[in-house]
Amino acid sequence: MLLRMSTLFVRTLRDDPADAELAGHKALVRAGYIRRAGSGLYSWLPLGHLVYRNVEAIIREEMDAMGAQQVHFPALLPKGPYEASGRWEEYGDTLFRLQDRRGEDHLLAPTHEEMFTLLVKDLYSSYKDLPLSIYQIQIKYRDEARPRAGLLRAREFAMKDSYSFDVDDAGLEASYQRHRDAYIATFQRLGLDFVIVSAMSGAMGGSGSEEFLCPTPSGEDTFVRSPGGYAANVEAVRTPAPDPLPYDDVPAAHVEDTPGTPTIDTLVDFANRQLPRDDRPWSAADTLKNLIVMLVHPDGTREPLVVGVPGDRDVDEKRLAAQVEPARVEPFTDTDFDAYPVLARGYVGPQVLGADTDSGIRYLVDPRVAEGTRWVTGANQPDKHVFDLVCGRDFQPDGTIEAAEVRDGDPAPDGSGPLEIARGIEIGHIFQLGRKYAEALGLKVLDEHGKLVTVTMGSYGIGVSRAVAAIAETTVDELGLSWPRHVAPADVHLVVAGRDESIVSAGDTLAADLDRAGLSVLIDDRDERPGVKFADAELLGMPTIVVVGKKLTDGVIEVRDRASGDRDEIAYEAAVEELVRRCRG
Amino acid sequence: MLLRMSTLFVRTLRDDPADAELAGHKALVRAGYIRRAGSGLYSWLPLGHLVYRNVEAIIREEMDAMGAQQVHFPALLPKGPYEASGRWEEYGDTLFRLQDRRGEDHLLAPTHEEMFTLLVKDLYSSYKDLPLSIYQIQIKYRDEARPRAGLLRAREFAMKDSYSFDVDDAGLEASYQRHRDAYIATFQRLGLDFVIVSAMSGAMGGSGSEEFLCPTPSGEDTFVRSPGGYAANVEAVRTPAPDPLPYDDVPAAHVEDTPGTPTIDTLVDFANRQLPRDDRPWSAADTLKNLIVMLVHPDGTREPLVVGVPGDRDVDEKRLAAQVEPARVEPFTDTDFDAYPVLARGYVGPQVLGADTDSGIRYLVDPRVAEGTRWVTGANQPDKHVFDLVCGRDFQPDGTIEAAEVRDGDPAPDGSGPLEIARGIEIGHIFQLGRKYAEALGLKVLDEHGKLVTVTMGSYGIGVSRAVAAIAETTVDELGLSWPRHVAPADVHLVVAGRDESIVSAGDTLAADLDRAGLSVLIDDRDERPGVKFADAELLGMPTIVVVGKKLTDGVIEVRDRASGDRDEIAYEAAVEELVRRCRG
Repeated sequence: MLLRMSTLFVRTLRDDPADAELAGHKALVRAGYIRRAGSGLYSWLPLGHLVYRNVEAIIREEMDAMGAQQVHFPALLPKGPYEASGRWEEYGDTLFRLQDRRGEDHLLAPTHEEMFTLLVKDLYSSYKDLPLSIYQIQIKYRDEARPRAGLLRAREFAMKDSYSFDVDDAGLEASYQRHRDAYIATFQRLGLDFVIVSAMSGAMGGSGSEEFLCPTPSGEDTFVRSPGGYAANVEAVRTPAPDPLPYDDVPAAHVEDTPGTPTIDTLVDFANRQLPRDDRPWSAADTLKNLIVMLVHPDGTREPLVVGVPGDRDVDEKRLAAQVEPARVEPFTDTDFDAYPVLARGYVGPQVLGADTDSGIRYLVDPRVAEGTRWVTGANQPDKHVFDLVCGRDFQPDGTIEAAEVRDGDPAPDGSGPLEIARGIEIGHIFQLGRKYAEALGLKVLDEHGKLVTVTMGSYGIGVSRAVAAIAETTVDELGLSWPRHVAPADVHLVVAGRDESIVSAGDTLAADLDRAGLSVLIDDRDERPGVKFADAELLGMPTIVVVGKKLTDGVIEVRDRASGDRDEIAYEAAVEELVRRCRG
Repeated sequence: MLLRMSTLFVRTLRDDPADAELAGHKALVRAGYIRRAGSGLYSWLPLGHLVYRNVEAIIREEMDAMGAQQVHFPALLPKGPYEASGRWEEYGDTLFRLQDRRGEDHLLAPTHEEMFTLLVKDLYSSYKDLPLSIYQIQIKYRDEARPRAGLLRAREFAMKDSYSFDVDDAGLEASYQRHRDAYIATFQRLGLDFVIVSAMSGAMGGSGSEEFLCPTPSGEDTFVRSPGGYAANVEAVRTPAPDPLPYDDVPAAHVEDTPGTPTIDTLVDFANRQLPRDDRPWSAADTLKNLIVMLVHPDGTREPLVVGVPGDRDVDEKRLAAQVEPARVEPFTDTDFDAYPVLARGYVGPQVLGADTDSGIRYLVDPRVAEGTRWVTGANQPDKHVFDLVCGRDFQPDGTIEAAEVRDGDPAPDGSGPLEIARGIEIGHIFQLGRKYAEALGLKVLDEHGKLVTVTMGSYGIGVSRAVAAIAETTVDELGLSWPRHVAPADVHLVVAGRDESIVSAGDTLAADLDRAGLSVLIDDRDERPGVKFADAELLGMPTIVVVGKKLTDGVIEVRDRASGDRDEIAYEAAVEELVRRCRG
């Protein structure tokens, strides 16, 4: 393939686009790879589309190699199947809904679990037909509340989504592993650095879930990793629960007057001044903070929930949200407090909480609030706190919840050392979906004993357009884009640096020869100053930059490696062979 | 590529799908290539997707070869650009409209003229940047009133749409010709029979337009062709206008009582009985029929229109609709007649019609109603007709309109002989759009004199999913599908006809050898009777069917040509070489 800058539909921009925050996004726009078409909507220009197609081809090859078969579903779908699975409601505002000319409800699919399930139900009926893995590479839609970061969180985006179908759990585990291996191969070929982390399941339901994250400080996802190899999405981090403590010697709980102490800080201050301990000062970790929120379930019902965490930690909204999905978390309003007079604002304590208490309000606690731990917490009346309140003796939580913030240095749950917090871009997600959709939509097959069994499924996604953005984001430097070899729009960016006829014709000849030798070439044949051409070559980011210029009189041309910045000279006469070696070697 | 029937995600069906009318559609569903997902919505199964991708690849290669560059726009778009061009309204119910979570109006794009225009405006500013041709292969949406015929008229479908940008008309003409040549090459490679016909422009506006039609009796489009090579979409047929006739000798128009003659037939009958001619009987061709319709313009205004045609011809609704676009034609109702008392139902005559008359009602006539022609027509009062009414003397039409039906045997407008009426599937459309969108959206460049000029555009479409359907429809036979070589999912369907270990292993070996030799193979390795396998092979339609069966003991296998039905035997030992020759030769 031979592209010419003189005719290529591209214009590089001097200034960063106003709406771009991330370096990769800025560079993709400035280099003329993508262009904003609306909020969260992007158009691909020719160079961008070449990268997109290279990425797509690698993903397809790896899926085909593992035995998955490609299909393709519409993006526009009738409501029915999504109503049957409950997702028509669960998706909330994130789902694009529309009516056709007959007034029938339709949606733009955010994912296709339902359709895949129904298609397999349509065609297959026996355990002999399984296992099956099918996939599509297709455009998806999500009406994001805050589209940002360009292709990383667009409202229209390309995804590879595959689904596995197995007759039993062992089969699902095997299909999951095959996908996991294929994903590792795929991301390696894409030139993407990645970490595999344990993940929550999101709105999908089910269990057994890992994310492929591309580590970068600008990533939207937070994850943790330990020196011993533990890695998890921050939503998925399990807090090691301490062993139960004996509490026979703990004095009975006692209520104290603590005027003007509605916050943890004021409470700790007051206690240290007025009720000092003998052994050490009170700290926030001695207190039990109770956060009240309102859950809104998909059917619209509202349920108050109190989350108890040690007072030295905040509740992490994303962790809490992930735990209560598909319910949505809303703030507990003044009106809500009026409706639940048992909750004394700023002084809520667990003595009145729990499904079995008079209030009936659900109470979930951080795993650190284990049996036998003792706490300073609200006494359910203004200006009073209770001391020596023992979990399991004086109050009974309804269960635990992973909602407290995770901190650098927290112990890994598997004992593999202290956690480090890092950020990354989610580029893939593999997930043992189980029987949720098969049950909702009636996908059963006959097993080897002639008995109908519900099929178990896995769901596996790669954001294709997002992978392009992740590659850009993690390879961009101060000069511009810098594509890994296998996804670059062209192997060689050939800069014709000079207007002499000998230079121009040598450049043309070399470009044609490289093209014939199987390399893809972008030749800058414009009537521009060399400085402009060099800057554009750095910005556009082909992995190898070749300069045909004045040194041609010495029989040499310059070769630059875009990523490392290394440059050297090679003989013009041997250039084709040498460049093929460097690009393909 | 080696596919195995034992694991391929496909099930052939015995019965035709209930909602399919066309043979190709039925076969695509029965053979497990596509599957209905909703009204006008189809999913592609693995074999169908392979055909789709083969078709897409050929289209892309030919577009790239002619120098067009691939881009990609979102399907979901904000309203703005389509409001600026007027199409937000013009498209009427055919446009899928939706609002996002902020209540902003969006659409699912039916075509992308606006976005292409804006993108070029964004990047380019000089005549030196042109000519430019850019294209995308992308999913489009139309909320069809009557989705039918499977992929031929779907609501979600894949299209290749390209646009050319030139500084002047000569440039546009050249870009148009390049696209025309590329389309000819594309359809030839796709194995599609086609006719290039002159076409109306539809809702696009502009001039200079041809359609590529694939002739088939089940086609939705009607076209005409003459022995001398004229071919046109029926909407585009021009009626040769007769020369003006002298009318000095024609007697003055005279009104006659014609009781009970509200139709042409009753009028001709009456005239022949009560007012016979000397020279020959009256015929319907002597009468002038005036059809009254209500035009509804995109802005909602309603305008009555009377169309006058010779009484022996009906008005062709599709021809009329094409002429008045973007206005819509509605019937003239009782209420409308009440509002226009000048129109005597059944006896409307041109004496009271025309923009310059008191009624102000627009009156357009068939070109055959030329100056000097004389007519029997309504006298604008019940039970009366006027005779010897001369066009140009007694009434003045506001212009002509191509709305009368076209008939077998009508003369071609270029004198190339009588027209034959045929049907076809529209597979491509090339169109000199002109400056409509560039003007609406302000796409101007500086010309060589430094003057701002409006760019002129061409628009060129190929229905990608529709091409798959057209190929199926025109190659299907009573046994099933029969793919042309270049689009078939596989070159060879290898039937293992027998359960003997020697047969099974010879089949496996041959399949692997063919795969290594670069052919794509679908091997039927299922534990099924040969009869079932043969029937499926015919239905699935790979161009070459190879049977490895009992004759293997004689060292031969059978080769069938799916399209011709020819079969012969070849030596197993020489099979790879021979099959490569046949498939690639």
